[in-house]
Amino acid sequence: MAMMELLSQHAAFGGSQRFYRHDSREIGLPMRFALFLPPRPRALLVYLAGLTCSEETFTMKAGAQQMAAELGLALLMPDTSPRGANIPGEAESWDFGLAASFYLDATEPPWNRHWRMESYLLEELLPRVGAEFGLAALPLGLFGHSMGGHGALTLALRHPGRFGSVSAFAPVCAPTQCPWGRKAFAGYLGADERAWAAHDASLLMRVQPRPPYPGGILIDQGLADKFLAEQLRPELFEAACAAVGQPLTLRRHEGYDHGYYFVASFVDDHLQHHAHQLLG
Amino acid sequence: MAMMELLSQHAAFGGSQRFYRHDSREIGLPMRFALFLPPRPRALLVYLAGLTCSEETFTMKAGAQQMAAELGLALLMPDTSPRGANIPGEAESWDFGLAASFYLDATEPPWNRHWRMESYLLEELLPRVGAEFGLAALPLGLFGHSMGGHGALTLALRHPGRFGSVSAFAPVCAPTQCPWGRKAFAGYLGADERAWAAHDASLLMRVQPRPPYPGGILIDQGLADKFLAEQLRPELFEAACAAVGQPLTLRRHEGYDHGYYFVASFVDDHLQHHAHQLLG
Repeated sequence: MAMMELLSQHAAFGGSQRFYRHDSREIGLPMRFALFLPPRPRALLVYLAGLTCSEETFTMKAGAQQMAAELGLALLMPDTSPRGANIPGEAESWDFGLAASFYLDATEPPWNRHWRMESYLLEELLPRVGAEFGLAALPLGLFGHSMGGHGALTLALRHPGRFGSVSAFAPVCAPTQCPWGRKAFAGYLGADERAWAAHDASLLMRVQPRPPYPGGILIDQGLADKFLAEQLRPELFEAACAAVGQPLTLRRHEGYDHGYYFVASFVDDHLQHHAHQLLG
Repeated sequence: MAMMELLSQHAAFGGSQRFYRHDSREIGLPMRFALFLPPRPRALLVYLAGLTCSEETFTMKAGAQQMAAELGLALLMPDTSPRGANIPGEAESWDFGLAASFYLDATEPPWNRHWRMESYLLEELLPRVGAEFGLAALPLGLFGHSMGGHGALTLALRHPGRFGSVSAFAPVCAPTQCPWGRKAFAGYLGADERAWAAHDASLLMRVQPRPPYPGGILIDQGLADKFLAEQLRPELFEAACAAVGQPLTLRRHEGYDHGYYFVASFVDDHLQHHAHQLLG
């Protein structure tokens, strides 16, 4: 198994903020990730970032390390897509290709060769990080922002039992019904929309036989978010949760926008949500 | 008086994080700054950033807004130099010219026309921000990082009575005796080193007739900081404080480096230090 290459590390809040690169088997390219190790890790949270972001964005801007250190939460921040594939057009749009993986395994060429983020995260990165850093036995939570909120909700629903807790900031809740999602799914999954439903959080929730996260899902959404009405559609996920009895705390915040000042303002609540669900 | 132009604003922690641009009389160019307004401002802190930084760096990376909101501290983050002067060579070095003002008024041409950061901050920005945002009557504190720590310590010593509290992260403590400072002072103040002492925190402290900050000065310094021995020299400021009886809390932190994970790890302590000194 190829080495994890430590790119940098910084003491932070009594723990260690690190950046790594490794050769990914699933992606077929080098991938980067950030990892915050608190002084005494008791659980591991995976954070999936949004369009245009990278492993650095939440790490630098969210101010999550202080509370994570207090609660004993290791934080794993993957990158948002493969990089270096040099697929024609991969950098033409900010909402497709680079930094816009939507955290699924593409089935359409040319994307299906490298754009395998779901398998990368679930089958490769999590097991390797768990093994390499002694975190494999810890309870696991998943959260994210915007496209990464979509990633968190869909991966949590597609892999029952894998994650003990899930939350999101301003997630793309119904990608089959918004421009970002329709563009991405058409490109990565093809024109046949029947393949799309398995990657739409609201549709996935509607087919659950019982509430998959009985402890509740937490979503924060700013009401000054310019993407709210057209791209995010939390009301559809809210209705889907209600239909299957899934407890959901959807907090709508007057005045808050889509950016990281919004994420930072509520990230401590998310960390506490995960700590409570994972550690009691 | 020219308008302050609001470039962006973001709800954050119940307050508002804003970015402004205005035409500066002292600088003779447009200048930018960031301002965090907590829900109930009780004091104003000015933060001076280090080499290569801007008004955005601390604003985005330090995670200071949460505690500032709790304590009622407005935060003013100026830029680190004039920009747009197009002086030959201004962008050639990362430690001189752009983003490297050292927070003084240059006396040497061509820098003396625009590089007037001390007058800008004290005579223009602070009065204007105080008047425009209803903060003029609030107690005032000053802090900064690296080159901005030098700025905080020297401006606090050069303007007695103006600031009620001062602190610094990894400050350049004795610029007349380090490469960064000697290069900057030679360029901005000229070859005659007699003019330099008035901008060296350790030398300024040594000539104080009595302890200027009897409540104490707080400095945090990482021991894994690669600039510590050659550029920062906190032991010289420590000795100067001891010589005049100035109370100093100089905390040396094993493993911490020069970056913003270090600043973020201890920023709450600095905010509490200022709140305690300014508000009791």
